[in-house]
Amino acid sequence: MPEPIASRAAAQAADEADPLGYARARFVLPEGRVYLDGNSLGALPTGVRDAVQDTVEREWGRDLIGSWNSNGWWTLPARVGDRIGALVGAAPSQVMCGDSTSIQLFQALVALARLNPGRRTIVTDEANFPTDQYLAESVARLLGMQLIRVSPHDVGAVLGPDVAVVSFSAVDYRTGQLWDAAAVTQAVHAAGALMLWDLAHVAGAVPFELDALGADAAVGCSYKYLNGGPGAPAWIYLAARHQDGADLPLCGWQGHVAPFQLDAVYAPAPGVERARIGTPPVLAMRSLDAALDVFDGVSLLDLRAKSLALTSLVLGYADALGVPSVTPRDPARRGSQVALQLPFAYELTQALIARGVVGDFRAPDLLRLGFAPLYLSYVEVWDAMDTLRAVLETEAWRDPAFATRAAVT
Amino acid sequence: MPEPIASRAAAQAADEADPLGYARARFVLPEGRVYLDGNSLGALPTGVRDAVQDTVEREWGRDLIGSWNSNGWWTLPARVGDRIGALVGAAPSQVMCGDSTSIQLFQALVALARLNPGRRTIVTDEANFPTDQYLAESVARLLGMQLIRVSPHDVGAVLGPDVAVVSFSAVDYRTGQLWDAAAVTQAVHAAGALMLWDLAHVAGAVPFELDALGADAAVGCSYKYLNGGPGAPAWIYLAARHQDGADLPLCGWQGHVAPFQLDAVYAPAPGVERARIGTPPVLAMRSLDAALDVFDGVSLLDLRAKSLALTSLVLGYADALGVPSVTPRDPARRGSQVALQLPFAYELTQALIARGVVGDFRAPDLLRLGFAPLYLSYVEVWDAMDTLRAVLETEAWRDPAFATRAAVT
Repeated sequence: MPEPIASRAAAQAADEADPLGYARARFVLPEGRVYLDGNSLGALPTGVRDAVQDTVEREWGRDLIGSWNSNGWWTLPARVGDRIGALVGAAPSQVMCGDSTSIQLFQALVALARLNPGRRTIVTDEANFPTDQYLAESVARLLGMQLIRVSPHDVGAVLGPDVAVVSFSAVDYRTGQLWDAAAVTQAVHAAGALMLWDLAHVAGAVPFELDALGADAAVGCSYKYLNGGPGAPAWIYLAARHQDGADLPLCGWQGHVAPFQLDAVYAPAPGVERARIGTPPVLAMRSLDAALDVFDGVSLLDLRAKSLALTSLVLGYADALGVPSVTPRDPARRGSQVALQLPFAYELTQALIARGVVGDFRAPDLLRLGFAPLYLSYVEVWDAMDTLRAVLETEAWRDPAFATRAAVT
Repeated sequence: MPEPIASRAAAQAADEADPLGYARARFVLPEGRVYLDGNSLGALPTGVRDAVQDTVEREWGRDLIGSWNSNGWWTLPARVGDRIGALVGAAPSQVMCGDSTSIQLFQALVALARLNPGRRTIVTDEANFPTDQYLAESVARLLGMQLIRVSPHDVGAVLGPDVAVVSFSAVDYRTGQLWDAAAVTQAVHAAGALMLWDLAHVAGAVPFELDALGADAAVGCSYKYLNGGPGAPAWIYLAARHQDGADLPLCGWQGHVAPFQLDAVYAPAPGVERARIGTPPVLAMRSLDAALDVFDGVSLLDLRAKSLALTSLVLGYADALGVPSVTPRDPARRGSQVALQLPFAYELTQALIARGVVGDFRAPDLLRLGFAPLYLSYVEVWDAMDTLRAVLETEAWRDPAFATRAAVT
């Protein structure tokens, strides 16, 4: 790793040399703001507006029902799935786009548990995103299994002959910790369990190798670093070797082997097609499809390098300010965000937003800043940290009355 | 009921007297076609384009993450749910919009089965739409229950002390049969079971009284007569009396009592808010929200009267042609579609589409025509039947080689 950028001049130089500098023009960015919340809702890619408008006016308005064939609506979920797969190391025909991450978690957890019968334990991360934990609870209850919560760091302590499935997020949504997915997957497999990765904070920001790791299944959303739009459809990866044995509980008509025969009894389609459920949200999926164009020609290694350079800049600046972070110092263990730990973090987040620096708050005391390498410049991130410094230097923020004052600035 | 319209002049007179005539201007309709497939994908309401564009450009592009509050994204599923509820006889705070019908069926079936513990049987219609049957199979298997398939007509024969839930579609998707929902619900309740209605072919076309019937739960899609767009989000109705006891298996983070506390353990929100699952598809839901404006000021009684006048016209014309129908003659038992039974129905459907009359085919021998009363005129429906007559009069269609010829006309 190069040294962290430690001055505005160095940030300017990094922008001038940025091999991804061209990508910023692929987004519509808000005036006068530094948007560090792309890990919650990605910015708007320029191509989305026309794509959605065309879907509304021509495909829906003019071509109507015929669009399922003539405009490729029927094949859209698999095509978009393949495009996402290419960003997370999945060869084609293993990713299906649709529904929400919660739904896909349920689907994948049941399918993997059924692929590993006789074992009665599901393991998830005690710090996993809530929906990951809630759906794991629900699946364990429906299947008469037990749920164990443990940090990925300590998974070795709970692996054993009763563990059917391990479900972790590859990047912790609070701390930005990137787990060693290869080591975890290997340990899980060595214990005879199956591995499910949630890549919500990975896809579009951190290279991942689902196939090479031998992951069994994965899920993810597409409204964060994939910039698909608010509530954009999620996706599921089912490793090719498991597809024809995958017994999916959400077995909608579109996953049937012959959906238009409208048979009374379910028989799953071969391959990843069985992971279709009901009618896909076409408008939202066309938005996502257009949004994925921003990755055309982008090297994921360049993306990762810029992501780490940005988060290193921020961690270095925070060090200089004496602000602690819960995000790993080791670049190999860091996603594309930095969470700073501060008193009055909620009020501070609001004060920053009022000054044009948009991050978010995670209870009880984290200011969470996300870094989308395709549309952020080094200089604006430097300036955002300057803004943070300026707020902290008012010293008002150390005062218990800061909350009140922050709200009115 | 008035006599069926039996001439083009009578159709013209009906258009001139149509109390819903103003509503046609609320849609963008394709040139040169009579669209009789609104029971599969409703036509485009005029307000959708601007609403979706505003959501993309201003709400997403400019306001970004702040839109969850400032532009009402967070409350959108409940607000849209209430608007749908008003069209199916549900008082506010009982309908939540989101996900697909398949997902909502799963959710409702498990919830109702858990509300009626000790009983081990789910009943569904042997002719129900496939996804309704597939999800009922899946739920029965997950909960260790049995599934019985029976026509709503014969439900009395299977009701008994072991039946927990009965799940029927109020209108048969093939035949257009409208079941006697009051009588069925009453019989189901008398046997101690709970009633789930699928209103996919009801909402927006046939008045329904969920509250007055005492229905326990309902689901529906919104891309048919609600005109929400391709793959528009579905909805679930949970009767107020069941909400706080509803134990939903798809317990996503947005249905948590305090979603932003990000607790590790699930605790459901009170009321219908617990029926939220993951992040809602905002673009698709804004499309639906705008689409629902076409019902502003519309009398559902006028809607029903026009629907029956259109289907009566078609049945009368078909009688004159000697074409049989599987759709009930009794208007009280008819939804808003007519299914004609014909040899070479597939090829005939294609030949009609080639002549600008858009219906659809349902295997093995049905030409299915749907009637959306808000945007169809009596004259165009009359003319569509004239087109059907013209195709049938070619006599080519009775020839086994019709398939080949139909494909090239």
